[in-house]
Amino acid sequence: MADKTRIGCDKLRAKVTDAQTAAGLIASGSTVAMSGFTGSGYPKAVPLALASRIEAEHAAGRKFQVRVWTGASTGPELDGALAKADGVEFRLPYNSDPIAREKINRGEMEYFDMHLSQVAPMAWQGFLGPLDTAVVEVSGIRPDGSLIPSSSVGNNKTWLDRAQQVILEVNGWQNPALEGMHDIYYGTALPPNRVPIPLVRPDDRIGEAYFRCDPDKIVAIVETQAPDRNLPFSPPDGVAAAIAGHLLEFLEHEVAKGRLPENLLPLQSGVGNIANAVLAGLLDSRFENMTAYTEVLQDGMLELITAGKLRMASATAFSLSPEAAAALNENMAFYRDKLILRPQEISNHPELIRRLGCVAMNGMIEADIYGNVNSTHIMGSRIQNGIGGSGDFARNAYLSIFVTPSVAKGGKISAIVPQASHVDHINQDVQVIVTEQGLADLRGLSPKQKAEVIIANCAHPDYRPALADYYARARLHAYGQQSPSLLNEALSWHQRFIETGSMRG
Amino acid sequence: MADKTRIGCDKLRAKVTDAQTAAGLIASGSTVAMSGFTGSGYPKAVPLALASRIEAEHAAGRKFQVRVWTGASTGPELDGALAKADGVEFRLPYNSDPIAREKINRGEMEYFDMHLSQVAPMAWQGFLGPLDTAVVEVSGIRPDGSLIPSSSVGNNKTWLDRAQQVILEVNGWQNPALEGMHDIYYGTALPPNRVPIPLVRPDDRIGEAYFRCDPDKIVAIVETQAPDRNLPFSPPDGVAAAIAGHLLEFLEHEVAKGRLPENLLPLQSGVGNIANAVLAGLLDSRFENMTAYTEVLQDGMLELITAGKLRMASATAFSLSPEAAAALNENMAFYRDKLILRPQEISNHPELIRRLGCVAMNGMIEADIYGNVNSTHIMGSRIQNGIGGSGDFARNAYLSIFVTPSVAKGGKISAIVPQASHVDHINQDVQVIVTEQGLADLRGLSPKQKAEVIIANCAHPDYRPALADYYARARLHAYGQQSPSLLNEALSWHQRFIETGSMRG
Repeated sequence: MADKTRIGCDKLRAKVTDAQTAAGLIASGSTVAMSGFTGSGYPKAVPLALASRIEAEHAAGRKFQVRVWTGASTGPELDGALAKADGVEFRLPYNSDPIAREKINRGEMEYFDMHLSQVAPMAWQGFLGPLDTAVVEVSGIRPDGSLIPSSSVGNNKTWLDRAQQVILEVNGWQNPALEGMHDIYYGTALPPNRVPIPLVRPDDRIGEAYFRCDPDKIVAIVETQAPDRNLPFSPPDGVAAAIAGHLLEFLEHEVAKGRLPENLLPLQSGVGNIANAVLAGLLDSRFENMTAYTEVLQDGMLELITAGKLRMASATAFSLSPEAAAALNENMAFYRDKLILRPQEISNHPELIRRLGCVAMNGMIEADIYGNVNSTHIMGSRIQNGIGGSGDFARNAYLSIFVTPSVAKGGKISAIVPQASHVDHINQDVQVIVTEQGLADLRGLSPKQKAEVIIANCAHPDYRPALADYYARARLHAYGQQSPSLLNEALSWHQRFIETGSMRG
Repeated sequence: MADKTRIGCDKLRAKVTDAQTAAGLIASGSTVAMSGFTGSGYPKAVPLALASRIEAEHAAGRKFQVRVWTGASTGPELDGALAKADGVEFRLPYNSDPIAREKINRGEMEYFDMHLSQVAPMAWQGFLGPLDTAVVEVSGIRPDGSLIPSSSVGNNKTWLDRAQQVILEVNGWQNPALEGMHDIYYGTALPPNRVPIPLVRPDDRIGEAYFRCDPDKIVAIVETQAPDRNLPFSPPDGVAAAIAGHLLEFLEHEVAKGRLPENLLPLQSGVGNIANAVLAGLLDSRFENMTAYTEVLQDGMLELITAGKLRMASATAFSLSPEAAAALNENMAFYRDKLILRPQEISNHPELIRRLGCVAMNGMIEADIYGNVNSTHIMGSRIQNGIGGSGDFARNAYLSIFVTPSVAKGGKISAIVPQASHVDHINQDVQVIVTEQGLADLRGLSPKQKAEVIIANCAHPDYRPALADYYARARLHAYGQQSPSLLNEALSWHQRFIETGSMRG
């Protein structure tokens, strides 16, 4: 088992037990808030033990399900195992686990896909119901009982504060040098007692390096020695490189026009291969002394820091490939004072995103010709992952940029459609759309002006004529000409894909 | 003409001229930013003179159009006259003028419907292009050249700061006792130099009572003596009273549960008859010592202050009936220290709305069964007014409430539909929906759970069976079960209305 020295508090060391015993403290029908954000810092033993227990209960003909709250996505030992066991009645706020996704899309699991910045406030406001148990991974416990956070912060502060009982996993795999990297802000409050959050630069530290936790609430501590999920990234392909190229040209143009400082503004980047490719593009750019104020630190961010292009990065979690995780662990002394992990209500706070003026870059599933973006629902019904923090950033950013390849499924799906089948980002929150075809700068344009530039610059040539034809007919026949649409055709491309496997006519 | 004593600065008094001369300083193709917000404080003489000039130019076969920016809606002397003259090439950010609306919906005028909080920042960021001329109504000019704001503040600070040339209208109709009511915050900046906005209570004053304006930029001053638009409100009918009743019961329930303080939290209320009815309902409630942090002060707010229920109200503009305007003018001494008018970037600032924890109450056109709200587009294409500040408030409020009668057009339109024909407020930003039928508390629910409560509680009985039938079939046949939809039916209710004049099957 794990190195005992990770639990520096005698009183708490007495609470060490095994995962089965800890999982036994969780009741069916209760709400369990877990740590974890983009595959980092999630508990790895207790959820697995809980899943085993649920399977045994089900085998014995007894009902057993829990309500699960997290920071964001976790790993197969948590979302995957619990979903497989049919153990989750309700889940919030973001999921990327394939087994859980399939359960949700079969209608066997309720999923509330929230703005990540709003989870903690709404928990405090009492809007999500009571919280029975917190299961939180930490990287150590100090002699005074304070907790050294792990590779993600997420909502852990709120879970520890709000839960009736707390189960800790102390993960000896996490690098001890994480200690000191975190900044846990304890100044939040319920209205009318909220005050300005005193952060004016991405590198400001406004809190403490540790979690506080009432030791009397801690009912079990489980020691683990287990890696984070750490999925590999694909190397940037031609499409990703083209997207990055258009975006970099735009950023350089904005600097030249005096609309962005020479070192840009704090970067936010969504997770995924395209986002990572954009960050890789910045490696070769002329921009220096950049900062990031974002949700997640992925490989590209670390590379920018290693190369000396990015001065520092603030986030709530890591999401690294196994290689990048190993490199981080080996060189923690170099990175430690250049990285800050914060609670997700702070990393994603509208107040701070607006103040800092983030340059927000997020992926999407599709955009319609008027610039409304769908980030979550395939063909309007089927959840992919979730809105995550994209809404927190897109609405409040200085520049709100969405990127996607112009087609998916080998050309059978167009990412530019007559009408988005689901809307996560209204056109007012979408300033720039980039595909490998080109970039549409939508700032200050009316819907019709947006349609013309999106069709011309972003749509794939295979779909451009059909989009132009739809738009031209909508200009003649729509019920109104602010955002002309033909209602009996608006969603027909999606319907055609469902029926024929392709959006092509 | 107007009382000369309204212009206390000798140097500026020399710039007094007539509206025709002032309008002659505006060039075709230029961008003109005007004061005005919900029919208050807009210039009343220069736009009319400009419209006449444009008509004359057009009659002479010459092209003449301008780009118009405002605070929000203005009056017939501005939007109506300029639209009638075919003088507006492009308009932002909010319009309620019927002539302009018709032009927009015929495709003859480009309209960029922005979040009201973002107009000033985006103007500063340079995203909207250069600003040539500001035409701003004030209620007086002080000896030092500073300007006493009028009955709305809107974006006037930004217009005065950013415009190449300034034309002032000094309106002797405005009550001189407005002086001192305004709070013009001069602490905004471009990133990376933004700092926390030091407002923690709705009654905090963080700025100055006057606008600063470089006197050398002032090219003309026109004296007027003209009332604001001041449209009457309809008295609350049974439907509005039922909506108010459901909402008050909910607020009382939230107080009882400890989720709202006894005096509630700062109220925000959209404009219109239903919103006004809700405010009227609060008159008879048990709530005392309330405050408002809102966009617009309408009759209901003043009545609450008169009755001693509302301690104070902060907004950016008045929108009063003629009777309420007269009452305000007569009793300005009583109201003056209970009202604060601020720039709209402050009244609608996400940072402040989130901090204060506003209770946001806004009207809508339709909501779909998953809680996505359309506030702007009739049948998906035709603009009604605009998103205004509803997005600023809904996303950041402590409680985000949308209200509407369950049917419109004598029952031919259902306000609850299978899929919103346009989305302004994503389901994550819609916590409560209220119709005269009942209230749906959507907090913490998955999309399917939301659908069940919206159909059961909010839909009109005439449409409830068809909605339930659609939902039941979508539960069986949709492409995914997160937000089940049938794409070839999702917008069919709207199409049926267009074709037959009714959504009924």
